[in-house]
Amino acid sequence: MGLTRVPGLLFGGDYNPEQWPEEVWAEDVRLMAEAGVNMATVAVFSWSRLEPSRGSYDFGWLDRVLGLLHEHGVAADLATATATPPPWLVREHPEVMPVDARGVRLEFGSRQGYCPSSPVFREHAVRLAAAMAERYGDHPALAMWHVGNEYADHTLECFCPESARHFRAWLRERYGDVGALNAAWGTSCWGQHYTAIDQVEPPRQAPGPVNPAQLLDWRRFCSDALLELFTAERDVLRERTPGVPVTTNFMSILHGLDYWKWAEAEDLVSDDAYPDPADPDSHVAVALSYDLMRSLKGRPWLLLESAPSAVSWREVNVPKPPGMMRLHSLQAVAHGGDGVMFFQWRQARYGPEKFHSALLPHGGTGTRGWRDTLALGADLRRLAEVAGTGTPAEVALMLGWDSWWGLEAPESMPSARLRLKELLLSWYRPLHARGVAVDLVPPGRDLSGYRAVIVPNLYLCTDEQAKALATVTGELVVGPFSGVVDEADQVHPGGPPGPLRDLLGVDVEEFWPLPDGVTQRVRHADGGTGQARTWAEWLRPHDGAEVLARYEGGDLDGLPAVVRKGSVTYVSCLLDDVTPVLGRVLPGVASIDVPPGVEAVRRERHLFLLNHTTTPRRVTLPEPGTDLLTRTRMRGEIELAPRDAVVLRIEGDT
Amino acid sequence: MGLTRVPGLLFGGDYNPEQWPEEVWAEDVRLMAEAGVNMATVAVFSWSRLEPSRGSYDFGWLDRVLGLLHEHGVAADLATATATPPPWLVREHPEVMPVDARGVRLEFGSRQGYCPSSPVFREHAVRLAAAMAERYGDHPALAMWHVGNEYADHTLECFCPESARHFRAWLRERYGDVGALNAAWGTSCWGQHYTAIDQVEPPRQAPGPVNPAQLLDWRRFCSDALLELFTAERDVLRERTPGVPVTTNFMSILHGLDYWKWAEAEDLVSDDAYPDPADPDSHVAVALSYDLMRSLKGRPWLLLESAPSAVSWREVNVPKPPGMMRLHSLQAVAHGGDGVMFFQWRQARYGPEKFHSALLPHGGTGTRGWRDTLALGADLRRLAEVAGTGTPAEVALMLGWDSWWGLEAPESMPSARLRLKELLLSWYRPLHARGVAVDLVPPGRDLSGYRAVIVPNLYLCTDEQAKALATVTGELVVGPFSGVVDEADQVHPGGPPGPLRDLLGVDVEEFWPLPDGVTQRVRHADGGTGQARTWAEWLRPHDGAEVLARYEGGDLDGLPAVVRKGSVTYVSCLLDDVTPVLGRVLPGVASIDVPPGVEAVRRERHLFLLNHTTTPRRVTLPEPGTDLLTRTRMRGEIELAPRDAVVLRIEGDT
Amino acid sequence: MGLTRVPGLLFGGDYNPEQWPEEVWAEDVRLMAEAGVNMATVAVFSWSRLEPSRGSYDFGWLDRVLGLLHEHGVAADLATATATPPPWLVREHPEVMPVDARGVRLEFGSRQGYCPSSPVFREHAVRLAAAMAERYGDHPALAMWHVGNEYADHTLECFCPESARHFRAWLRERYGDVGALNAAWGTSCWGQHYTAIDQVEPPRQAPGPVNPAQLLDWRRFCSDALLELFTAERDVLRERTPGVPVTTNFMSILHGLDYWKWAEAEDLVSDDAYPDPADPDSHVAVALSYDLMRSLKGRPWLLLESAPSAVSWREVNVPKPPGMMRLHSLQAVAHGGDGVMFFQWRQARYGPEKFHSALLPHGGTGTRGWRDTLALGADLRRLAEVAGTGTPAEVALMLGWDSWWGLEAPESMPSARLRLKELLLSWYRPLHARGVAVDLVPPGRDLSGYRAVIVPNLYLCTDEQAKALATVTGELVVGPFSGVVDEADQVHPGGPPGPLRDLLGVDVEEFWPLPDGVTQRVRHADGGTGQARTWAEWLRPHDGAEVLARYEGGDLDGLPAVVRKGSVTYVSCLLDDVTPVLGRVLPGVASIDVPPGVEAVRRERHLFLLNHTTTPRRVTLPEPGTDLLTRTRMRGEIELAPRDAVVLRIEGDT
Repeated sequence: MGLTRVPGLLFGGDYNPEQWPEEVWAEDVRLMAEAGVNMATVAVFSWSRLEPSRGSYDFGWLDRVLGLLHEHGVAADLATATATPPPWLVREHPEVMPVDARGVRLEFGSRQGYCPSSPVFREHAVRLAAAMAERYGDHPALAMWHVGNEYADHTLECFCPESARHFRAWLRERYGDVGALNAAWGTSCWGQHYTAIDQVEPPRQAPGPVNPAQLLDWRRFCSDALLELFTAERDVLRERTPGVPVTTNFMSILHGLDYWKWAEAEDLVSDDAYPDPADPDSHVAVALSYDLMRSLKGRPWLLLESAPSAVSWREVNVPKPPGMMRLHSLQAVAHGGDGVMFFQWRQARYGPEKFHSALLPHGGTGTRGWRDTLALGADLRRLAEVAGTGTPAEVALMLGWDSWWGLEAPESMPSARLRLKELLLSWYRPLHARGVAVDLVPPGRDLSGYRAVIVPNLYLCTDEQAKALATVTGELVVGPFSGVVDEADQVHPGGPPGPLRDLLGVDVEEFWPLPDGVTQRVRHADGGTGQARTWAEWLRPHDGAEVLARYEGGDLDGLPAVVRKGSVTYVSCLLDDVTPVLGRVLPGVASIDVPPGVEAVRRERHLFLLNHTTTPRRVTLPEPGTDLLTRTRMRGEIELAPRDAVVLRIEGDT
Repeated sequence: MGLTRVPGLLFGGDYNPEQWPEEVWAEDVRLMAEAGVNMATVAVFSWSRLEPSRGSYDFGWLDRVLGLLHEHGVAADLATATATPPPWLVREHPEVMPVDARGVRLEFGSRQGYCPSSPVFREHAVRLAAAMAERYGDHPALAMWHVGNEYADHTLECFCPESARHFRAWLRERYGDVGALNAAWGTSCWGQHYTAIDQVEPPRQAPGPVNPAQLLDWRRFCSDALLELFTAERDVLRERTPGVPVTTNFMSILHGLDYWKWAEAEDLVSDDAYPDPADPDSHVAVALSYDLMRSLKGRPWLLLESAPSAVSWREVNVPKPPGMMRLHSLQAVAHGGDGVMFFQWRQARYGPEKFHSALLPHGGTGTRGWRDTLALGADLRRLAEVAGTGTPAEVALMLGWDSWWGLEAPESMPSARLRLKELLLSWYRPLHARGVAVDLVPPGRDLSGYRAVIVPNLYLCTDEQAKALATVTGELVVGPFSGVVDEADQVHPGGPPGPLRDLLGVDVEEFWPLPDGVTQRVRHADGGTGQARTWAEWLRPHDGAEVLARYEGGDLDGLPAVVRKGSVTYVSCLLDDVTPVLGRVLPGVASIDVPPGVEAVRRERHLFLLNHTTTPRRVTLPEPGTDLLTRTRMRGEIELAPRDAVVLRIEGDT
Repeated sequence: MGLTRVPGLLFGGDYNPEQWPEEVWAEDVRLMAEAGVNMATVAVFSWSRLEPSRGSYDFGWLDRVLGLLHEHGVAADLATATATPPPWLVREHPEVMPVDARGVRLEFGSRQGYCPSSPVFREHAVRLAAAMAERYGDHPALAMWHVGNEYADHTLECFCPESARHFRAWLRERYGDVGALNAAWGTSCWGQHYTAIDQVEPPRQAPGPVNPAQLLDWRRFCSDALLELFTAERDVLRERTPGVPVTTNFMSILHGLDYWKWAEAEDLVSDDAYPDPADPDSHVAVALSYDLMRSLKGRPWLLLESAPSAVSWREVNVPKPPGMMRLHSLQAVAHGGDGVMFFQWRQARYGPEKFHSALLPHGGTGTRGWRDTLALGADLRRLAEVAGTGTPAEVALMLGWDSWWGLEAPESMPSARLRLKELLLSWYRPLHARGVAVDLVPPGRDLSGYRAVIVPNLYLCTDEQAKALATVTGELVVGPFSGVVDEADQVHPGGPPGPLRDLLGVDVEEFWPLPDGVTQRVRHADGGTGQARTWAEWLRPHDGAEVLARYEGGDLDGLPAVVRKGSVTYVSCLLDDVTPVLGRVLPGVASIDVPPGVEAVRRERHLFLLNHTTTPRRVTLPEPGTDLLTRTRMRGEIELAPRDAVVLRIEGDT
């Protein structure tokens, strides 16, 4: 079954009719029907139009919009309209605006102008969500609920007194009493021993480095505080429209929010993805984020926002050249997306996003943009059978927010250069290049089903998480600076790798961060060499551990770099190329042989082949099949045109 | 007739006698007379000395200063002394200090410590201006009034509640009611629909990008608010001394103030110009600003501040090497300046400008600086006949502040790299190199008199401005990203080039910003190639439009880059070299053939030849004449020594 | 006699037992004894544990700690525990937290959370210091007092109303009345004439550049305000424990505090030094700071904090490779240190410094870190006889804070690139390379005993300081931009070099700062050439002055660069290599011939030879002697292993 009651793949975009005179609406729905649009996201920023003054609603225009959509076969992803409070609320209650770490109360004039912990904002937002559910819960156009919008895009945290109260309540819930908090936060360091939780404040700007345990709990709290805001709205929607799925649009791999927890709280996972066309490598990073979205609930997800061409929020907003919009859309489907939607339907004439591309450009229907819209709609209809299919993966890549927050603490770390996304990509890139399907997994989960599990970094690793890793039955690869601290950011007794010591068969004698621009040569056991950047370690392998690579040259000369104990491999540095390590752990894992720049992804019996380069590429098909896009049967070697794609229904598979 | 009642060219500088014991004054005026100084700017920062406490004036010292100046033949450019409020006013009324976008009330201790909208500051400033006019209105030394000083140098905007009230009053004046404001600001975007203008605040720091229409109106308001402050003082001066011209010193091409509006409000245009001696190309940019000053009122202007050598406010303040001070001074005269004045007369011993060079350096009269002062005074006397002469130009370059503010909005634009000054210079530089006289013109003006009009960019273009462009009788050249939005920063229906569509004969299908460091090759119709940086566009030329150049390579390969329809040329990119385009539009325009680095400028029958290089340059005179500097008759080819100049009175011209 | 009552060299580190369960303490003192630790710094951040609530003390745990230390032969450097106020004090009195220049009251959560001028903080700090003295004044473990900690590391200045009151009191003390303040601050510039000192505020964020005289006095005040805080505690300690030396740990060459004044206020000089292992040249800069520490009181000092390996507060914290910890420790002793202590004894499990290395690493006693600790303890015992010995120097290098503060004013200077540390190092580096002993001296001191005095810069030079320079009997070398301003930052009449004019035999016609990346060739009288960066000057040498070098090329071509009059040499630029100048002034000065990267330092009859390179180096001993580290007799040429050292007791010297 699909994500919603709408059959096939979803196609459409954000639709902001309030920005246009009503006579334009008729043209809009006519063109949507022409393009095969089957879903529109409506009312994301409509609060000030739906409730122009306190308690006085104006639903008439939205009634008409939803009616028109429904008449033209377009389902509604209906927002609760709470992404931005209306001016009257901000002026009546200035305290709903967020306050930054330096005490500045931010001003109205942009969006997301709310303190996540404001009871006033929450009360009004929930009241509006209830009113929306009341009015539109039975509307035939309603296919899903869209709560808020891109949480944490602008407002991840607030330092106002209300947020401080909320933070202390969260701490009381977590720690019970001040003694436990003191123990967890290590307040004996730098003389911070509290005698009451009432003495605790958010980590506002301080004279010097702030207690890292306080910062880590603040990160947890900020994710949770926004999640509370989401669930408060979700609860009234679920109560009044139990059959309508609720989502909020994620922002790919976002540092601020623990999407594992968030995904549990919603009915379907949706994502906004904006790879930069100026970056020739951006399709790799976006594939990783798509795989995360698929993994969050272990089933298809929805690309709820993407750009037909340029966005408007970068310093330089490069457009998508011909073919790229289609290719990137098909890529989302390949990675488990059951729909491709866009920001936005009709290009705005005003506001901060007026230069953001749209399905229907300023220039209207005579443009290449509109022609691409029509063509994509047709392509997605051709792929309808893909909807709902899964993506079995034999390799898992670990990503956990607690550990990420700890690793990328803003100060006091061995190296500010060691960044989780780079660590993830150092492993994901070669897997992606050889068409290996990858699940993302959180720390602590049972992983016995995978042939290989890769943990690029697990700086924060609890005893329980260590135990979960020990149950891996396939190959396990652990990256540097792992097992360092416990849940409270306290170094494990005896030092790293802490609870992973026996599993990995090493002691980390000392971290060896490399200065900017400095590399450290590594010699693999097979004689080949590689380079480490950013990070290395001085290891003491235990008896019986095999050394797979050694540092060569410099002060680490001859010391082990990669160590293997049984089926567990520890990589103590950030390698430019992990291929030699993968060579040891990947045998037996399904992969697809494709030339550079071609992406191969399977969804059950469908094989997606995507040429991300600007030259033709020859690919040998692993099996014969029928290309759904052209309805052509293919076998043996085929040629993929630049930025072209093939979606092959493999013959032997059913 | 001259700028003031003082005959010939003005020569002198800022004079701050309050910084020196009275015995030094006698030496000052004696040396002024020796150097031929005929004007001194007095009392710019004297408020705290003239009114040491509220309502208690001490004019005695200034009486003596003006007396001494007059005795020695030095006229006074008398300031109203309101550039900085005195400490007592700031301490009595802390609310006169400006507040920044993050809510910080700035502290006394520098200058321009006032909120432009403060009624308290305005009341006191006008009262002081009136007292000055009362006391000195009939003084024989008084030749002109100097209101404030370098408006917007430090304080362009203030975000305090008083400024907010003023902004709302300005909005009420502009829009009448909140409905019109909502329509203009596009508040339907991001849910910003206001129900009362009282809900509007200045664009303080917000959680994310701010409504660009609000930002544009804020820019307009800030320019207007300071202009109100200027005109409030001007009005009392005009009332009491109707015959004395009023000015305030502009700051070359300043983003913050719409000098077209400002120039209308003053009696003569004066400018402060500080080209950086470390920049070998700075004489081109400063020539452009001089041409703007001349164009603002279409008549001679006054260089009211310049540096004899180094300034003191750059990170590295490079001095002017021998010859450059004279050369740059003559350059100002060449471009219509009827005087060359300096900051300052005597180098300060203290304060933030103590290392700023002066006509009389710390080292006194034994220095090369003083010798240069004497020599320049003599040169300017030799050029007396130039005063009052005009500069007929056949080419106009368009510059409008509304459009500039829109183009360089701080966020949400297709590319933050497209900057107006760079666009202007890309056209001005080659015109300057061939001695073509250029007027600057504002959008909307009748331009039928010019042989060629160049519009480097007109991002914001109203229907009226488009109509004015259509009346150009000569050649018209329009640069990229023009005709995009209307007065409210709303994209014209149908997209760019909006109201210029028929005139230019193109549709802009899509903007194509180029990433940093990337260039796009362009092939001209004549076979030559060039490079575009920063910006390109995907064009659809109309039938009958001629393609003068095409993009070559990359995704734009083969698409038109420069299009010509009749006598109108559209250039869709930022070209490194516009010479091939100028080749099409310049025939018939008067130019002067000079070698690289030599500047040729005419003021009626006088031809200035300025060698900005450090090597001798040979120049063929277009006509014989007499060099006013050496009283030598010249004809044919002459040699200009490094950093030397010739001011030729052409023989045939009268 | 030694620094304290503890014989030999001090060895130990910061000890924070409150971070560990009491059962760990026994292991701590046992291991300290094993390593030969004879001193531990205790209670630096213990306020919140010693006084958990107002007036209620908990000394029991510290009693037990000091008892344990004493039992194991470890003396205590006992802190007054006032480095960070406890949470209860901050919550009772939020006004003790410092306020930044933009008005932000900083938050608790880091350290040094106090306003230096807060009477509340001072009262509580002094009360605690008194309580500590009362309780532990007679404790047998007590060997020295450690007041505060690293003053000005985070909190150098505060802009709160209390600080403003304190600043005004300081100004009244300095100037008496507002007239003198107006004269000194040059308030006639930019209209800042005050009519009462009450109108003066700290230099908070202002609209533009702030009065530099105000900024200079603010720097002086900030250093003095913190010094008052120190002396307030010192006074109660001295009163109650007159025989116990009082110190506070300096931070090498710190811009914020005038260590000449500070050193006068303490009984012994101690320093925290953290050269960056990633910088191959860091041993030179740290040697300079060690020489300053030795010079501050003209006798041995104590390295109170250093890192066994990596620190934790850089962006990238590179560890010390094998050998470097020992080498850097011996270097401190070589430069007059009578002890080498570390931050910290046992590596923390939590807090911002948990990744800072320690004598006892996370990994415990099986690590190379612990082996190095044991080895260093043994080495220091072998050097016991060095304790108390002096370091006669024939060359002096001048360093004064007033001048430094003036030179590096945040704006309004001829060049922001001219930095004092770079100027100092340009002279110190070649002296260090040839083993020349160097004293640092403050401006104004009698310097008749030195063979050569080098003044890298003396921007601010009073008449008295000029007179003191004139009494130099040996060679005097003065660097560029000297003698420019007086004590109030006012340019000396007649311009630079002001009171040094006759001494130097030059007038500085004009400063000639060089833009970034530009160099100016210099031709020495002997025919060789060099390069100037950052700075040059246009000089007029007086009659009889000898030109030692001239500028070559560019606008300064042929003008003098280095001028000599009698035994006084003036260098008008920042030379890449001052060797040709030193060649003129060093003959007769004792030096030691060593290969590059080897440091040679004498302490009376002991010669330290330190190989800072990673390759063996051959050194010819100037005299035979016995290496204290190996008890080996050496003569002639020896080989120093990479990062190895020899401490030779010279035979002939006693």
